[in-house]
Amino acid sequence: MSIDPKVTVAELKELRELTGDADGAQRVAFTPTWTTARDWLRAKIEAIPGVEVHRDAAGNLWATLAGRSGSPDKALVIGGHIDSVPNGGWLDGCLNTLAGVAILRRLAAEFPDGPPVPVRLVDWADEEGARFGKSLFGSSACSGNLDMDEARGLTDKDGVALPDALAAVGIDFDQVKDCGVELANAAAYQELHIEQGPVLLDLDLPLGAVLGTFGVERHAIHFHGQAAHSGSTPMNRRKDAFLAAARMAPEIYAITGREGGVCTIGSCKTRPGIVTSVVEDCEITLDQRHLDAAALGRMLDQAKQASERFAAEAGVTVTWRRLWHIDPILFNDELIELCDQSIAETCGTSHRLPSGPLHDAAEAAAAGVPTIMMFVQSLHGISHNKIEDTREEHIEQSVLAFDRLATKIIGWIAGK
Amino acid sequence: MSIDPKVTVAELKELRELTGDADGAQRVAFTPTWTTARDWLRAKIEAIPGVEVHRDAAGNLWATLAGRSGSPDKALVIGGHIDSVPNGGWLDGCLNTLAGVAILRRLAAEFPDGPPVPVRLVDWADEEGARFGKSLFGSSACSGNLDMDEARGLTDKDGVALPDALAAVGIDFDQVKDCGVELANAAAYQELHIEQGPVLLDLDLPLGAVLGTFGVERHAIHFHGQAAHSGSTPMNRRKDAFLAAARMAPEIYAITGREGGVCTIGSCKTRPGIVTSVVEDCEITLDQRHLDAAALGRMLDQAKQASERFAAEAGVTVTWRRLWHIDPILFNDELIELCDQSIAETCGTSHRLPSGPLHDAAEAAAAGVPTIMMFVQSLHGISHNKIEDTREEHIEQSVLAFDRLATKIIGWIAGK
Repeated sequence: MSIDPKVTVAELKELRELTGDADGAQRVAFTPTWTTARDWLRAKIEAIPGVEVHRDAAGNLWATLAGRSGSPDKALVIGGHIDSVPNGGWLDGCLNTLAGVAILRRLAAEFPDGPPVPVRLVDWADEEGARFGKSLFGSSACSGNLDMDEARGLTDKDGVALPDALAAVGIDFDQVKDCGVELANAAAYQELHIEQGPVLLDLDLPLGAVLGTFGVERHAIHFHGQAAHSGSTPMNRRKDAFLAAARMAPEIYAITGREGGVCTIGSCKTRPGIVTSVVEDCEITLDQRHLDAAALGRMLDQAKQASERFAAEAGVTVTWRRLWHIDPILFNDELIELCDQSIAETCGTSHRLPSGPLHDAAEAAAAGVPTIMMFVQSLHGISHNKIEDTREEHIEQSVLAFDRLATKIIGWIAGK
Repeated sequence: MSIDPKVTVAELKELRELTGDADGAQRVAFTPTWTTARDWLRAKIEAIPGVEVHRDAAGNLWATLAGRSGSPDKALVIGGHIDSVPNGGWLDGCLNTLAGVAILRRLAAEFPDGPPVPVRLVDWADEEGARFGKSLFGSSACSGNLDMDEARGLTDKDGVALPDALAAVGIDFDQVKDCGVELANAAAYQELHIEQGPVLLDLDLPLGAVLGTFGVERHAIHFHGQAAHSGSTPMNRRKDAFLAAARMAPEIYAITGREGGVCTIGSCKTRPGIVTSVVEDCEITLDQRHLDAAALGRMLDQAKQASERFAAEAGVTVTWRRLWHIDPILFNDELIELCDQSIAETCGTSHRLPSGPLHDAAEAAAAGVPTIMMFVQSLHGISHNKIEDTREEHIEQSVLAFDRLATKIIGWIAGK
């Protein structure tokens, strides 16, 4: 029995019509438009025979198709998120959710007495963190990683606190981690997502198996020199903080050339910052990412050593301040293999790639659930923007391959 | 007959006591403290026998010691400025003026019937431009270079317009260029100044002869790339505006290595300027200075070519916008020679160097008057700051050498 992926494409368009506008998707978590999207989603799920639906303590929506009589209490969980950033793309997050709906629908039809193992769909609450600046809210509550003290203090741009915004949609902030019970019987987790980058586009491939999510080292680097008159100070007497900072730019490209991964200097600030003075203080931000923790550590070491060398050569000092850090999260090897097979059987060629952005799947993996993600090509390599798009042919292939993967994982769970 | 330079040092200290505070000199032009300094100066000058004193149409103060009977109507002009920046140094500008007072005093005593040629001292008004942001006001009014339309629109931080500030001290803005007549009989112009840089300090020399003032090319350089997610965008897909801009920093040092002169990138701004995005727009300022106009032109060409190469390599575009420009101003070769001799005779060794900052002398030269400046060593190489200082021994040598130069130039004028 097979799925009709054109139904999923039609449902994505229906959702876009219902909750988007000329500027893009507007399903920001815990807002009325998000509630509209959730109600629409819930109606779709409740129309599937045999599916139980409930919202957990953190606002995640769970749909469960119980396994056939005598099946193990080991569930396949399919994840997605219907929330979006403001002026977001039409596929980010909801493709995952609606592909999951299609799979539940197919399984319910194919197995009137229930599939070989329980299959669950979760629509995570506030993956994007667009309103409170903290992503993966629902999934990190579920994994237990949510920092309650930090989350309690978050406010939106109007000064509304996260606990109050949750209360407005019927969620008790102090209880959100109770949702952790939902993962108790999870034996595997699968998630489909648009790539949000240009790797598959450049390879001209529709689909890829995701190896895991990058670890991240994020630092502010401050170079301190000496302001001096631009006319009266000879070049060899300068302590030029910008010179040292600027030399980091080609260096981070050289580091990725040696180690892989990605590095970004996203911001540069100069003081006094006037045309007639040598720069006394220069602060840059550095974001480094790699799938391999050891390589990430080497990237950081190399950047630090380079900064000290450039500082010494320019006669300035350098200090580092860590802004944020997360370890790489690796997906399950066997599930990566099954994902590769599903892609190859659907469209001929697969490709393995890491994920630069974080996803709810990282929280599932962090909770110890064997996890896999599948990426579908993004046109322009752009996301979080109304121009985000994917060819309909590729959307359809992604739904077919993702469904094929569900079948393989159900067999994998049942066979263990 | 010789000068007692210790008197000049004592007068400099007297002026500091009268018009400075714990933060430094406070003789900002057209303020009450400046008027206090001017009144004090005028009293010193009027005590010299035979000196005529008047203020010209732009507020410059002129003191004239007429030449002996039958002397040519070709005057030596000695220039300085008693105004300072806020929280300024104790020597900047007023050393020149008080050394001039000492020379008039010596000449009046030595030549009771008048020196061989007329000798004039001018205390220029508002050399610093600290209040209205436009330096060389009085001297550029005198040379004719003052842009009247631009000057008319200048306001201070309290919104007071320059014409109104001038009216408050009895100067009619519309008439300021009438002061140009003062230079009609000027046959030479000499100015003493602290170096405000570290060249003489590094050479361990007290005095130097100045070759001229640097020409300046000042531009804003804008690199335009593409914002992209720091996690999902491979390095080879980036259009990183900061990478291209940053590569200009070592390049400007390379340019000065080839051409001499100085180059400064004083400001760098990035947009969107967030840690998670590749930089889309980066604007830097570039200040290039050289004494040789052809070399300055080559420096600009090389910077433009480098920016285009770096832009192309980073996949971004670059545009240049000129902020300001002034040609190099060369001092008189024969007067440079006389200055060198005066220094060598006073303290053994001379050195020739260009001036990075502009000075009133540049306006005198621009007006066609044969011009020379003498620099005295600055401790720390720092000016426009209360820590600005020069060893008393060097101040004394500068007054002696500057006086010796006056004698040589008087002879040079008389002999023509």
